[in-house]
Amino acid sequence: MLTRGGCPRNMMSIRDALEALEGKWKLLILFSLANGPKRFKAISKEVEGISDKILSKELKHLELNALITRQVYDTFPPTVEYAITPHGQSLEKVMEELHFWGLAHRKKIMGK
Amino acid sequence: MLTRGGCPRNMMSIRDALEALEGKWKLLILFSLANGPKRFKAISKEVEGISDKILSKELKHLELNALITRQVYDTFPPTVEYAITPHGQSLEKVMEELHFWGLAHRKKIMGK
Repeated sequence: MLTRGGCPRNMMSIRDALEALEGKWKLLILFSLANGPKRFKAISKEVEGISDKILSKELKHLELNALITRQVYDTFPPTVEYAITPHGQSLEKVMEELHFWGLAHRKKIMGK
Repeated sequence: MLTRGGCPRNMMSIRDALEALEGKWKLLILFSLANGPKRFKAISKEVEGISDKILSKELKHLELNALITRQVYDTFPPTVEYAITPHGQSLEKVMEELHFWGLAHRKKIMGK
């Protein structure tokens, strides 16, 4: 696509995607939910460096964009679990390509 | 990969990629340079909504990450052109997947 140049329609769809996934946390949170639903603390532990405040904000944004669901269980005390939706799972190829590119980038820039 | 779950090594490479590409502008700038070198004003026109200050900052960051080059030509007055590098072009598949996902996301969330 790059070699075919940037038609405005493509630019719009990439912009849509980048707005839904903006920042460095959302994809990492989705990645952490990829192997099963998790509670807040478990996500926070897996996504190193994220503060509780930001994680809370990002989870709300992901829910609004139909990428995850938030389920409250009627236990005592109540438990809350976050799960990736099929729409969230449809980011698999994006993440795969980012993974491969990230490996190549580390090699190129950081020389390891 | 998502269905295979999130091993720490994959998380690290995705994090590397997201840090190099952070924000909503960098990929759009690279996309605008995909069909040939451009001057500052031309990029600014193509990437709608970006301010000169942010564009200038983003171009520097992209240059530091070896994704673009900045070439000064000895004309009167001097002209400056930005061009995508092969490393920048290696983001083609990431952009392609973001493009497809962006289309699906617009359909799902915005219903159009």
